[in-house]
Amino acid sequence: MTAPLAVAVGDPAGVGPELLAEAWMRRGEEGLTPFFAVGGATLLARAATQRGIDVPVERIADPAEAAGIFHRALPVLGDSDTPCRPGRPDRTSAAFALASLTGAVRLAITGRAAAIVTGPIAKSRLAEIGFNHPGQTEFIADACGVPTEDAVMMLAGPSLRTVPLTVHMALADVPRVLTAGLIERRSRIVAQALQRDFGLAAPRLAVAALNPHAGEDGRFGDEEARIIAPAVAALRAGGLAVTGPHPADALFAPHARDGYDAALCMYHDQALIPLKALDFDNGVNVTLGLPVIRTSPDHGTAFAIAGKRLANPGATLAALRMAGECAARRAAE
Amino acid sequence: MTAPLAVAVGDPAGVGPELLAEAWMRRGEEGLTPFFAVGGATLLARAATQRGIDVPVERIADPAEAAGIFHRALPVLGDSDTPCRPGRPDRTSAAFALASLTGAVRLAITGRAAAIVTGPIAKSRLAEIGFNHPGQTEFIADACGVPTEDAVMMLAGPSLRTVPLTVHMALADVPRVLTAGLIERRSRIVAQALQRDFGLAAPRLAVAALNPHAGEDGRFGDEEARIIAPAVAALRAGGLAVTGPHPADALFAPHARDGYDAALCMYHDQALIPLKALDFDNGVNVTLGLPVIRTSPDHGTAFAIAGKRLANPGATLAALRMAGECAARRAAE
Repeated sequence: MTAPLAVAVGDPAGVGPELLAEAWMRRGEEGLTPFFAVGGATLLARAATQRGIDVPVERIADPAEAAGIFHRALPVLGDSDTPCRPGRPDRTSAAFALASLTGAVRLAITGRAAAIVTGPIAKSRLAEIGFNHPGQTEFIADACGVPTEDAVMMLAGPSLRTVPLTVHMALADVPRVLTAGLIERRSRIVAQALQRDFGLAAPRLAVAALNPHAGEDGRFGDEEARIIAPAVAALRAGGLAVTGPHPADALFAPHARDGYDAALCMYHDQALIPLKALDFDNGVNVTLGLPVIRTSPDHGTAFAIAGKRLANPGATLAALRMAGECAARRAAE
Repeated sequence: MTAPLAVAVGDPAGVGPELLAEAWMRRGEEGLTPFFAVGGATLLARAATQRGIDVPVERIADPAEAAGIFHRALPVLGDSDTPCRPGRPDRTSAAFALASLTGAVRLAITGRAAAIVTGPIAKSRLAEIGFNHPGQTEFIADACGVPTEDAVMMLAGPSLRTVPLTVHMALADVPRVLTAGLIERRSRIVAQALQRDFGLAAPRLAVAALNPHAGEDGRFGDEEARIIAPAVAALRAGGLAVTGPHPADALFAPHARDGYDAALCMYHDQALIPLKALDFDNGVNVTLGLPVIRTSPDHGTAFAIAGKRLANPGATLAALRMAGECAARRAAE
C-alpha cells in the first residue's frame, strides 16, 4: 500500500489551513489519496469552523495511522500548533510553517510519506526567522542533497504544463544567463520526470523562443540560432522528442497545445502568463528532479482573503490529486 | 448613412480571399456593415469556389455603390486582379496586395470608405517589390501623415485587449527602449481611442510590469520604480484611470481581466501570449491613433492551408464587425 501524503500546512495566517480542511471534506468526490497535516490540529479545526465546514481533526503519532482514520477525520501528525489568526502573519506563524515544512520533508525523504504537498508561505516572513532559501523548492532540494539548479519547477494545469528555465531575475538578465547546457540539462530532467511520475512513455517537449517571432531569422535577436536551436538539436540527437524554438505567442494557442506535453519557457512570465490565463484556479507547482515527489498549489498566502470563505480550493485539490497520482506510479515501479 | 468599409484583400495566395468570401456569406447572421474589396473580382470568385461556397461577385466603380448591392453580391471596386493560386505567393501576388492596400487607404483618408480592414500579407514578399515599411500599420500611418510611433497596435479579442509598447525587437533590447514618456504617450492614445471608437466613457488601463512579480520591490529589476510607476502616476495625475505596474503573470487571469479595458504590455509576447492563448481564433489587430479606422484579423497568410477549406473565419468576421462598430460611433459624433 502506498504511504500517505505529508502536507506542510503553509503560513497559518494564510489560506492554506482552510483549503486543506476543505480538501479533506471533498476527499471522496475528488478521489484523494489519504494525506495528513504536519502539525496544526487546533489551527485546522479553527480554520474549518471559520469556513463553515464540519471537519473532525484527529491527532496521530505516526504517518502509518493516517490511512486508517482518513475516512472519518483529517489526520494531524504531532503536537506542533499555533494560535495565529487569519490575515495576521507574525514570527510565530512563520516558525510554525517552517516546522511543518521541515517535518514533511523529513518524512518523505525517509519514505514514511509518499509525497510532500506544501501550502503557501510568506517568504519574507520566513526570512525574518533565519530561513535563508529563496523558497520552499530550494529548501527541499537542499534537504534532498540535490543541487538547487536541478530542482526544476513545472507549472501544471488542466490546459498545459510549462517549465520556466529562469525564474526570479530581472528580464534584462535573462538573455545573459541562457545557455544551451541549461536548456539541455533541464529538458532531460523534465522528460525523465514526465516518464516516471506522469506516465508519459515518450514525452514531447516544446521549447519556446526568447524573441518575438523566434527572432525572424536573426532580424531581432540571435539567441534562437546561437543557444536554443543547438540545444534542441542535441536533445533530439539524444533521442528525446523535443521541438523548437517556437514563437512563444503561438505556442499556447489551443491547437498548438495539443502538440506537446510540456513547454520549456525562457523566463518566468513566459511560463506563468499562459498558465494563469488558462488555469488560474487549478495550477499546480510541481518540483521535478528530486528523489521525493513534491507538489504545491500555485498561489500565495492570500492573507487579504484568509478566513473569509473566499479562497478557491481548486489548486489545493489539484496538488493533492497530482501528488497521489505520482506516488501511485512510483509505488507501482 | 455610414460609408462602406474598404477591404484590402491581402496576399492573394494566402487565406485572405477565401475568408473574405466566407465573411460575405455570413453578413446577415453576423450583422456586418456593408464592405467592398479593393480589387480581385476573379480572385475572390475563384477563392469562394475553392472553399465550396456560392458567392456572387459584382464589380463596382464607386464605393457608394457597395451598400446597394451588398445584400446580393460581394462588391469589388475596380479591375485590378491576379491569377495567383493559393499557397503560391510571387511578385505578382505581392504587387496585387500592395495595390489593394494603397487603394483602400486612399479611400478611407478621403472619407469614401468608413474604415479599412486589411487582410494578411507576406512582408518579405512585399519587401521584394520595394515596399519599405515594416508592415501595413506603418504604411497606413505614413499615408495618414502620422508618426509611426503614434500608430498604436492594439490586439482585441472577446476576452481581453492588449497593447504592446514595443514590438519587433530582441527581448534584450526591450529594457533599453522603455521610457516613461513612451508609456504616457501611448496610454493617452489608447485611452482616447477607447473613448472615441469603442464607446468607453472612462476607459481603465492596466499597465504590466516588465520584471517577474513586478520586480519584488527592486529585488530583480528596477524598471518598475524607475520608469513604469512614474508614468502611471503622471497619467493618473492627468485624470486617466490607469493602474500598475501589475505583475504580468496575474494580469491576464480571469478575475484580473475584469478590472481593466486594455492592458499595456512592455513587449510583444507579453501582449500576444495571453491574447492568442485565450482568443486565438478571434483576435483583431486594430490600429489606434490614426485619423482613419483600421482593423485586421490577427493572423498571417497561412499559405500552407490556403485553398484547403481549413482557415477559420473568426478573426476576419471580428475585424469586420469591429470596423463597422467603430465607424458607426464616428458617424454618430
